[in-house]
Amino acid sequence: MARAIAYLGPAGTYTEEAARRYDADADLIPLASIAAVGSAVADGKADEGVAPIENSLEGAVNDTLDLLIQESRLRIRRELTLPVEHCLLVAPGTDLDGIEVVISHPQALGQCRDYIERRFPRAQAVAALSTAAAVEQMKASPIPAAAIAMRRAAEIYGVTITEEGIQDRPNNETRFVVLAREDHPPTGRDKTSLCFSFDQDIPGQLYAVLKLFADRNINLAKIESRPTKDGLGRYIFLIDLEGHKLDAGVREALSALQARVSLCKVFGSYPRFEAS
Amino acid sequence: MARAIAYLGPAGTYTEEAARRYDADADLIPLASIAAVGSAVADGKADEGVAPIENSLEGAVNDTLDLLIQESRLRIRRELTLPVEHCLLVAPGTDLDGIEVVISHPQALGQCRDYIERRFPRAQAVAALSTAAAVEQMKASPIPAAAIAMRRAAEIYGVTITEEGIQDRPNNETRFVVLAREDHPPTGRDKTSLCFSFDQDIPGQLYAVLKLFADRNINLAKIESRPTKDGLGRYIFLIDLEGHKLDAGVREALSALQARVSLCKVFGSYPRFEAS
Repeated sequence: MARAIAYLGPAGTYTEEAARRYDADADLIPLASIAAVGSAVADGKADEGVAPIENSLEGAVNDTLDLLIQESRLRIRRELTLPVEHCLLVAPGTDLDGIEVVISHPQALGQCRDYIERRFPRAQAVAALSTAAAVEQMKASPIPAAAIAMRRAAEIYGVTITEEGIQDRPNNETRFVVLAREDHPPTGRDKTSLCFSFDQDIPGQLYAVLKLFADRNINLAKIESRPTKDGLGRYIFLIDLEGHKLDAGVREALSALQARVSLCKVFGSYPRFEAS
Repeated sequence: MARAIAYLGPAGTYTEEAARRYDADADLIPLASIAAVGSAVADGKADEGVAPIENSLEGAVNDTLDLLIQESRLRIRRELTLPVEHCLLVAPGTDLDGIEVVISHPQALGQCRDYIERRFPRAQAVAALSTAAAVEQMKASPIPAAAIAMRRAAEIYGVTITEEGIQDRPNNETRFVVLAREDHPPTGRDKTSLCFSFDQDIPGQLYAVLKLFADRNINLAKIESRPTKDGLGRYIFLIDLEGHKLDAGVREALSALQARVSLCKVFGSYPRFEAS
């Protein structure tokens, strides 16, 4: 039986594309928010879930980080990366010189800012909740509009692509995580993601934690902070490290970590993504 | 003569309120983006600029971090914090039970998610580029709509507040920075913000940098990372530390830091904000 994979929808978004590339035979279930994807997996309504976690230009996807922090039943089972290629989409027959609004998700608008200013200097940028929702809004717009979205959205919504690769910078890639109820067994080329926080604000405590990893030659691929939501100045730290949680050195560092922090949660160990 | 202070507009946003509280006598200049606020200050068209940098629920404001990284002529001169009190706004005479869309900036929609689901279970959430733009969209909406914005937006746009304090969590505060061409002289209760990055990915290098501060008992109030925009996996680290860049210990740590990193930029030293 095909696996059920929930993803941040609607159809025609980059997340759908990542899920399709991950498992072309799966039953894909589009959901309206990253939180809904997490709940579907945690409650067993889906086997796995796909959500964006980081873009090479925009940085972390906070909703996914917050979901991992808050939902204790989820683990990261895989990571995937996908190049982002934004296209300009219009309703068939639209006169490009008459475009008055350009609609997209705020991240995509940001990634095409120079293009929009150069090509449509008088147009207004309008926000949508996803690149696919932008295409729907564009189709329904009473004034001449264009949308920024991915290639496949044009097929799904029956509109025309007038230009491809309109993002301002190359190297635009998004990293996705596959969420499941269990993480991945060791493969020898793994990463581990975790978060921790401190009760009190003591000088040098973050340094002392990083020392636990440095002393064991464990490389940190990434460090982030998120608010604890208890007020400004209180943070949860998120780390990606190289190695599997079952590797001896990592296991040792993690148990030393637990003794030093007020909260510690391992999101999972999973194979490092390598483009095939 | 009154100071000219640029801010992320339009009028009626939380940033305008922060700028008004900072200097009630200033000439306030609303600009359409955080980048435009930065340019106005860097080019001398405004004396200072006000931009949000961090919210206690949503975390960092990436556009402001990226502006500080990229624009070498800007310094942080002050920080300010402001409590966030979201209100529900409708056109006068609107029947609340008929509301079909709730419009706001995506961050405000996120901060009122539970309220919206409880109060308007059948309404659709629609994104706007600012809370003030949401009020304009609400007024122009052909279908019954409500907007989430701050109190003052109701006055400015001549609409009605039906409920106040609708955010899902208390402790919702935003921190703003005042950008200028020079930072602030020492006051004895200061913070310093800076960023750095590394050429190569060497295990333990971030730890070695934090050691420079820990060895001198300098407390780090915050650590963030932002993508370098050269591809996934390359980061610029941003740190807020306690102390002024002219303090002996901080000066020593900063010069040791410069020897270890490929890029180092001090955004400025400024007095710690204390609510009066």
